[in-house]
Amino acid sequence: MSGNGFGHSFRFTTFGESHGPAIGCVIDGVPPRLPLSEADIQPYLDRRRPGQNRFTTQRQEEDAVRILSGVFEGMTTGTSIGLMIDNTDQRSHDYSGVKDTFRPGHADWVYEQKYGIRDYRGGGRSSARETAMRVAAGAVARVILDHVVAGGVTIRGAMVQMGPHAIDRNRWVWGETAENSFWCPDAATVPVWEEFLDGVRKRGSSVGGVVEVVASNVPVGLGCPVYDKLDADIAKAMMSINAVKGVEIGDGFRAAELFGEDNADEMRAGNNGETLFLANHAGGILGGLSTGQDVVVRLAVKPTSSILIPTRSVDRGGAEVEVITKGRHDPCVAIRAVPVAEAMLAAVLADHLLRHRGQCSFP
Amino acid sequence: MSGNGFGHSFRFTTFGESHGPAIGCVIDGVPPRLPLSEADIQPYLDRRRPGQNRFTTQRQEEDAVRILSGVFEGMTTGTSIGLMIDNTDQRSHDYSGVKDTFRPGHADWVYEQKYGIRDYRGGGRSSARETAMRVAAGAVARVILDHVVAGGVTIRGAMVQMGPHAIDRNRWVWGETAENSFWCPDAATVPVWEEFLDGVRKRGSSVGGVVEVVASNVPVGLGCPVYDKLDADIAKAMMSINAVKGVEIGDGFRAAELFGEDNADEMRAGNNGETLFLANHAGGILGGLSTGQDVVVRLAVKPTSSILIPTRSVDRGGAEVEVITKGRHDPCVAIRAVPVAEAMLAAVLADHLLRHRGQCSFP
Amino acid sequence: MSGNGFGHSFRFTTFGESHGPAIGCVIDGVPPRLPLSEADIQPYLDRRRPGQNRFTTQRQEEDAVRILSGVFEGMTTGTSIGLMIDNTDQRSHDYSGVKDTFRPGHADWVYEQKYGIRDYRGGGRSSARETAMRVAAGAVARVILDHVVAGGVTIRGAMVQMGPHAIDRNRWVWGETAENSFWCPDAATVPVWEEFLDGVRKRGSSVGGVVEVVASNVPVGLGCPVYDKLDADIAKAMMSINAVKGVEIGDGFRAAELFGEDNADEMRAGNNGETLFLANHAGGILGGLSTGQDVVVRLAVKPTSSILIPTRSVDRGGAEVEVITKGRHDPCVAIRAVPVAEAMLAAVLADHLLRHRGQCSFP
Amino acid sequence: MSGNGFGHSFRFTTFGESHGPAIGCVIDGVPPRLPLSEADIQPYLDRRRPGQNRFTTQRQEEDAVRILSGVFEGMTTGTSIGLMIDNTDQRSHDYSGVKDTFRPGHADWVYEQKYGIRDYRGGGRSSARETAMRVAAGAVARVILDHVVAGGVTIRGAMVQMGPHAIDRNRWVWGETAENSFWCPDAATVPVWEEFLDGVRKRGSSVGGVVEVVASNVPVGLGCPVYDKLDADIAKAMMSINAVKGVEIGDGFRAAELFGEDNADEMRAGNNGETLFLANHAGGILGGLSTGQDVVVRLAVKPTSSILIPTRSVDRGGAEVEVITKGRHDPCVAIRAVPVAEAMLAAVLADHLLRHRGQCSFP
Repeated sequence: MSGNGFGHSFRFTTFGESHGPAIGCVIDGVPPRLPLSEADIQPYLDRRRPGQNRFTTQRQEEDAVRILSGVFEGMTTGTSIGLMIDNTDQRSHDYSGVKDTFRPGHADWVYEQKYGIRDYRGGGRSSARETAMRVAAGAVARVILDHVVAGGVTIRGAMVQMGPHAIDRNRWVWGETAENSFWCPDAATVPVWEEFLDGVRKRGSSVGGVVEVVASNVPVGLGCPVYDKLDADIAKAMMSINAVKGVEIGDGFRAAELFGEDNADEMRAGNNGETLFLANHAGGILGGLSTGQDVVVRLAVKPTSSILIPTRSVDRGGAEVEVITKGRHDPCVAIRAVPVAEAMLAAVLADHLLRHRGQCSFP
Repeated sequence: MSGNGFGHSFRFTTFGESHGPAIGCVIDGVPPRLPLSEADIQPYLDRRRPGQNRFTTQRQEEDAVRILSGVFEGMTTGTSIGLMIDNTDQRSHDYSGVKDTFRPGHADWVYEQKYGIRDYRGGGRSSARETAMRVAAGAVARVILDHVVAGGVTIRGAMVQMGPHAIDRNRWVWGETAENSFWCPDAATVPVWEEFLDGVRKRGSSVGGVVEVVASNVPVGLGCPVYDKLDADIAKAMMSINAVKGVEIGDGFRAAELFGEDNADEMRAGNNGETLFLANHAGGILGGLSTGQDVVVRLAVKPTSSILIPTRSVDRGGAEVEVITKGRHDPCVAIRAVPVAEAMLAAVLADHLLRHRGQCSFP
Repeated sequence: MSGNGFGHSFRFTTFGESHGPAIGCVIDGVPPRLPLSEADIQPYLDRRRPGQNRFTTQRQEEDAVRILSGVFEGMTTGTSIGLMIDNTDQRSHDYSGVKDTFRPGHADWVYEQKYGIRDYRGGGRSSARETAMRVAAGAVARVILDHVVAGGVTIRGAMVQMGPHAIDRNRWVWGETAENSFWCPDAATVPVWEEFLDGVRKRGSSVGGVVEVVASNVPVGLGCPVYDKLDADIAKAMMSINAVKGVEIGDGFRAAELFGEDNADEMRAGNNGETLFLANHAGGILGGLSTGQDVVVRLAVKPTSSILIPTRSVDRGGAEVEVITKGRHDPCVAIRAVPVAEAMLAAVLADHLLRHRGQCSFP
Repeated sequence: MSGNGFGHSFRFTTFGESHGPAIGCVIDGVPPRLPLSEADIQPYLDRRRPGQNRFTTQRQEEDAVRILSGVFEGMTTGTSIGLMIDNTDQRSHDYSGVKDTFRPGHADWVYEQKYGIRDYRGGGRSSARETAMRVAAGAVARVILDHVVAGGVTIRGAMVQMGPHAIDRNRWVWGETAENSFWCPDAATVPVWEEFLDGVRKRGSSVGGVVEVVASNVPVGLGCPVYDKLDADIAKAMMSINAVKGVEIGDGFRAAELFGEDNADEMRAGNNGETLFLANHAGGILGGLSTGQDVVVRLAVKPTSSILIPTRSVDRGGAEVEVITKGRHDPCVAIRAVPVAEAMLAAVLADHLLRHRGQCSFP
């Protein structure tokens, strides 16, 4: 009710601030007898971990996750799963800059207004550090999807635009995303982004980006009309990620420009009586339910507000000040949003898989 | 849990199919002692009602709402409010066209897959008829916002793009929205859209559009970090509306193209010690919390799939067919999405107002 | 969140006051393709209906339920089910007695304190009239239990004590409950209660009672450790019924007097490898999960506070008054609690059946 | 949804097994700016801790709680609070006894049936060890109640019956509960229980008991009609505690024996215009709402099933066996239920306090 949990049948509830002793979560609703260990989670955390190249914050965290409950002899037991990651790089430094002044575009002014208090160290609860638990919970969601759905569900993310520079979708190769610092699926765009982002970083600025996440082999019929539509829950999941300002499914905003006959995903009969779609403008979701086609989601990530370029602001006393944010920051947070968006999509799908199974299993 | 309710502290749960005897809802959580009567709800239903001009479906419904409970001597009592609207224009006709064949881009194929059964009459539960209850619940949410928030909260919607034709934002006049059939705030664009949509309608096609909704005088601090952020719940609310494929807050996807210093909404001190923002790229929401600036939301609406132009599909037996959808339909459903989007924004704000009050009222 | 709904996977949300135009509910989560019509619900409402003999209130209501949605051609569709019952006997009379004075032991004083307003006509929302929707929702729950569980689940209730007069459990015959005005399973006790309750009624008083509800053929393993234990949800369901002041499972309070070896339900192996229990002190629930034995629940119902005997109270102005409640009342509301308790047990079991199926269906 | 959380506006979600590395919880919804440190929680854990005398299990745990988030400079921040207690006395021993055989009256058989797997070490998730987190969360709930309610809310528990031996309520002195091993408020009963329980313990048996919890200075009007009545949520809270088989409010089952005029809590006007009640048969709750009188709750606790006396059972292979449970156990678990019941009552009251404030704060 107060916003620190996500999902219904598969639900995770998180805690932790950027500079507290630890972050963690409780995952409730995981089916019993699924194989699970830290080794199923850690690789996803490693993908999200900052400090791996010059394009992300230089905070160095091992991000070693520990499973504290809910698993016995390598299998889930159906009871709640406690996960924890110790914070190991809470660099002790001078917070006077952020303690009493508010960064334009940052959560700190509005946290102070809402709660009358805020943990200003590293952004506290509003820090992107929180997203580590999303990734951990998403890894558990993937285990559910892979064991309950025949053939498993594949969830992959990519960055498709950095600032004004979009990729060429005709050159999309999923395998490329692991070969560069940007999760970029278009090898030819990588050097463009490298040069561009180096410039952004060097002048102390930041830039936004667009992330695309795709889930394949999603079962037909996931989603709960009419308010918990699959796309509605995906939109919420994505918009809840730090710095996200827009979400699209399938053609998204481009659908507004289309005529009905162009937007329709026509259907034909396959050789085995199955239905084949001739297009996927819908992004795998119609009427709030999955169609079995790829679920395609895009999210817009704004530039981080923590920059070295001075901006005008006020302090706690109401006086006008200029703000420069020193410290370790991401010139393009959209990069690190990729594994987070994958995780959130996994969480939504796992939740709706179990919800569907509860209501619509047929004898 | 199965998707027919929305909200937490302010929650409405709906029922009803397009061609059943009635649609209705239960609203739970309304504060006591607010003045409420059908006259507070009916005007919003009248705005949504189809059949008022040649650009919306010719279904004729009186849409007269009745309050069945929760109000005593003109005041809310704090108990649940039951609302009901009788369906009066369930035109009896031949459903053989939709009973056994599936419209490309429509919910009917996937409802059949999920449930193994569907009420095919007029789209059943997936019909836009369901949105009448959103509008009714939103009207009650407005009453809360107007009585609990000093000065009231103003929520207004407009259509800002039809197909490829966007308005000129420099000509935006809110008062114009009531003067044309499109909720268009730019008088000069109206004749362009009229001619364009007449063409679309005459050739039996449909087209998408973009809707913008703005809430003014929103209290600071609404929203629950980190998963029930105000923008996350708004995104869910909007994406749950029929035919919506994208949602943006503030600059939305354009924020992805900006540098940090351009995206920052700088702050200055006002004459009375209050904080003034010099811009509103954030669309009134930072860190998932309202900043007090206008909350600005845009949604992309796809073209309706019910068109007179033949498209390729399959029938229930799996055979390939061509589909033409006769009957009463909207050439541009985005028009009717305007009052629905306003209502959903009101519902989210009322919910978070009460949630905030529960947790953060200070002595 | 504000209390007008019950359940998670099977959830019903109700509205309606005693003297408003109608009462109703929305049921969400019902599996699709179950046969359902008014004929499945009406018999249970008829069992609850007052005015059928001299031992219940003389209010005369037809209590004809209408299904407004969620059913198509006699089958559930998986969408929300709207139910409604018109109020037809809101006798117009002088409410000055209850409008301004508070009945000791009744909800009206405390409703006034909480909400600052109350619908005083017939008790408003606190009236036992509300329980009609519990019975209707419970009837739908029974349809789920009967179709999803092989062999169906049998849920039966009885009154086992009236005031100081308990039945002799050795004479328990379920068939007897339909043969008298009290749902009494012990024929020999019926004349005792008749004479006793006639005396209570004639002198304008009321009396309490104990109700027992038993569910048979409950699947093993229903319930969600540790806070949504099956017995925890049953306790909540029963305590939410008007006038209930105590709930027991199995031996209940008598278990407090036992030694461990006496309370243990020993197990033996059956002929087909199944586990047989040699006793049922646990009332069919261990560790919050159903064991497959009969689920046995007892609830204590207090005497109604609406009596003809004067009691000391205060009025809205704070002045001291004497209260006599005229009108139609139940001398022993425990009688009418029997079908309500059955319904609530059905609702809890259906909810946990679907919840279990969602999490623990094995491939 | 899968049962590891409790509450709505004040909600805690727990994890942890008896013999895992740690137990913990996340508390969501705590108002900001309340003073909170481990010192507010630890004393309640110390009261619950076993091994403090010969009448409770000899497990030795330090039960040192750590606050991992949600508190900054000694004040709550409004974000989620993570709590953790390391398990330090997971005695490594031979589990062959419980691994393959099922204790009659214990949760282990039914966990195995539900999940197809169970952590048999020390009872796993079904262990009373889980109740430590209830006590920790309850301590945080007390902080809310003490700071939001003028004058604070006092919540005290006592054991009022052990096996067949009830206290004499005329000798009730709250201060006595801290002076003996049983939370017994009647000094004269203490030696009776000591002798009785020594006998029970020496012959390897166990016995049940009855616990009473009382909350004083509860604000008027807490509770959400009609399904989340205050007493309904209390009943759920208490019945969810291990080994509880019955719950009563106020007169409870004795109310079933009363006439209406005897059960009515008559009202008189106080000197300052306030309403005075002349009795408290209702246990402080009418119509599901708190009346401001003491909230009085009793719960029946069964004898633990882990005893040294042989009982008949089956093993995992279905063969018939005799079971003796060695190890550290409580001869009367009702003793340790006292601080747990207090904590659950605190949690329910804090939750409804915030819920009430959200809906019914008047301008």
